[in-house]
Amino acid sequence: MAIRTQSVAEVCERAKRASRRLATLDTAAKNGALEAIAAALEGRVDEILEANAEDLEDGRAAGLDDALIDRLSLDRKRVQAMADGVRDIVALPDPVGEELESRTLPNGLELRKVRVPLGVVAIVYEARPNVTVDAAALAIKSGNAVVLRGSSTAARSNAVLAQIVAEAGEGAGLPAGSISLVAGGGRDELAELARQDGLVDLIIPRGGEGLKTALKDSATVPVIYAAAGNCHVYLDAAADPEMAKEIAYNAKVQRPGVCNAAETLLVHAEIAPAVLPELFMLLREAGVELVADGRTRALAGPDGDLVGEATEEDWDTEYLGLKMAIRTVDSVDEAIDHVNRYGTGHSEAIVTEDERAATAFTDTVDAACVYVNASTRFTDGGEFGMGAEMGNSTQKLHARGPIALRELTTSKYVVRGTGQVRQ
Amino acid sequence: MAIRTQSVAEVCERAKRASRRLATLDTAAKNGALEAIAAALEGRVDEILEANAEDLEDGRAAGLDDALIDRLSLDRKRVQAMADGVRDIVALPDPVGEELESRTLPNGLELRKVRVPLGVVAIVYEARPNVTVDAAALAIKSGNAVVLRGSSTAARSNAVLAQIVAEAGEGAGLPAGSISLVAGGGRDELAELARQDGLVDLIIPRGGEGLKTALKDSATVPVIYAAAGNCHVYLDAAADPEMAKEIAYNAKVQRPGVCNAAETLLVHAEIAPAVLPELFMLLREAGVELVADGRTRALAGPDGDLVGEATEEDWDTEYLGLKMAIRTVDSVDEAIDHVNRYGTGHSEAIVTEDERAATAFTDTVDAACVYVNASTRFTDGGEFGMGAEMGNSTQKLHARGPIALRELTTSKYVVRGTGQVRQ
Repeated sequence: MAIRTQSVAEVCERAKRASRRLATLDTAAKNGALEAIAAALEGRVDEILEANAEDLEDGRAAGLDDALIDRLSLDRKRVQAMADGVRDIVALPDPVGEELESRTLPNGLELRKVRVPLGVVAIVYEARPNVTVDAAALAIKSGNAVVLRGSSTAARSNAVLAQIVAEAGEGAGLPAGSISLVAGGGRDELAELARQDGLVDLIIPRGGEGLKTALKDSATVPVIYAAAGNCHVYLDAAADPEMAKEIAYNAKVQRPGVCNAAETLLVHAEIAPAVLPELFMLLREAGVELVADGRTRALAGPDGDLVGEATEEDWDTEYLGLKMAIRTVDSVDEAIDHVNRYGTGHSEAIVTEDERAATAFTDTVDAACVYVNASTRFTDGGEFGMGAEMGNSTQKLHARGPIALRELTTSKYVVRGTGQVRQ
Repeated sequence: MAIRTQSVAEVCERAKRASRRLATLDTAAKNGALEAIAAALEGRVDEILEANAEDLEDGRAAGLDDALIDRLSLDRKRVQAMADGVRDIVALPDPVGEELESRTLPNGLELRKVRVPLGVVAIVYEARPNVTVDAAALAIKSGNAVVLRGSSTAARSNAVLAQIVAEAGEGAGLPAGSISLVAGGGRDELAELARQDGLVDLIIPRGGEGLKTALKDSATVPVIYAAAGNCHVYLDAAADPEMAKEIAYNAKVQRPGVCNAAETLLVHAEIAPAVLPELFMLLREAGVELVADGRTRALAGPDGDLVGEATEEDWDTEYLGLKMAIRTVDSVDEAIDHVNRYGTGHSEAIVTEDERAATAFTDTVDAACVYVNASTRFTDGGEFGMGAEMGNSTQKLHARGPIALRELTTSKYVVRGTGQVRQ
């Protein structure tokens, strides 16, 4: 893999050439390459851990915090999980060639709309080295070439992983250039990658707001942004009180730093006295800072005095941490209005035993994922049975929700005739 | 319809509110509104023709050419065709609510991916007033509110058509604001419309390159560009010579000013002597200016001397008129390489009786529509049985090919549980 000496444009041109052949590989050929990649990860685990140890040493010297060091760290178990993840993708159906529509037109033309790969998919990601492997496996299975651009923090880990994956894949018959890593973590390379019109068919930024801003300013190729999640849980008048408390607690506390965690709790006035006092206590015990509107504080009983006053800004904020805003509403419609006004269209949940309220919520809330009687935390390609994910889209065009195999494809109309011309 | 006094932002806010209710209307309610719209167009034809006569008078005074005057002109037959077009859309299946995926996850969650409307769709279009009606009908059937922005040339025609359509639709139960026209043909209004983030879910420019450039510079809302068509017809060694000539002729001559007309003809060297001399004669008789590479000119016999030398620029040009570039190739692979290098991914055709060549072409040509033994001229929502179209997309994300009902939708995951929380 002589990638380090190639320019970004050269890497992308090579990927484009590879993508033409990749698009025509059958499922067995792609799965064979993925099996070889999984085996190579297992066989070369020592190389991976050695490179990772160097990244970790530099990271500690640079003063990375514990959370970042944990995200960067690999061990035998984590490498095995990567190999297992590749085999999970082998087991998934191949999206390419799927017939989406088929009909014979009145003039005898036979029209088929079939699923085809996008071509070249670029992914830009931060600390976690496993994304190198997940992204490559998803891209290959969906018939795409992939251009990887990881962070400088994980440079050595990503380089070794990309090399192993590319060598194993090419050894098993993938065209040269199917899997490439853009070396160098600088913004210049990122901007160059984002301007490869005609070569890169999609770029997916998977990371923080800084990354997205940098791409918004520079990208001329198509981008799917994995946007922020200002998610809500609404406890309806007809909620089961125990279920209501469990779901609200889980959506906030189980992993507060991720985009599908809940930020605002909406509570129907009729159920507030039955759930809020205990919920306030549980959340505070878990270290969650609470802010609420005045009415909620009154309904919460004596504990209400212990929470702050929520402002307009709170309804708009994705805390991504142990803080939650709470508001009392008088109807499911009021809850829906709040969600559609302040939500970012990511994941929204209602807890209710009332089918009418559930249907109103699922029909009218404008979001990628709408839950009835379940935690918002399930929005995830793995949880949804889609294999690993490239990210989670809150945009409406092309892909909404987890970005996995199907989302890395487009379609093509194939029309067969017997000499038809237009009159 | 007090739209003329509203700002662009107010029109879009009203459309957004309407879209929330439109999304929940059932098929019968939407079809009822469309039937009422069709009847109103028939009943108010005199008003329409009166407004159109004023536009035509101004157009002639402003020196519009015959082609533009023809595109702007309405008569009873054309108004009837609009009403018939609306009824055609009534007859199409409702895309909203279609279940795209459904499965029960191991934890018992029931996951459904369902098709839902985008919300607010804006369309920006030029002279033809029928787009006002087509776009409104497609948007309503797919559960979207629509914001129309026609050209100043057709201002009065569009205003009356939009008023009739909005009044009839609202009279039949559509929420107020479902169908709006942004008055004023200025670039300021266009730029304002293209920056209504959170209100406009998709903007479709349907017009020339100037319109697209204006939007590329200003748009912050999602856009689908109906891009140019540099389309090819490839006559394979195994083509039926008569069919080859008919398809090549039709793709160039039947309507040369549209995006699915062919611009370059690729001819396999083995069949060139059998087809080129007659084809050259036929095309020249139809007034087509021909340019070709030296080899083609030699193969064409004595007529070869009468055509110009094709340059690199010719392969790259969408003539949109009576001119065609011709090149001789030695294999289907060489033809595919030419198409993928110079094509714009719109519509590409092969003429062959060789199944291997046909499959190589359909598998490897990277375009929205790929034809075997048929003219490129069939790429059209109406021809494809999709009803009217909003335009034709050559981009790969979201919609590729004609933009009709399904292309105006997105999806939503609806997940139902019994209290599941994430471990």
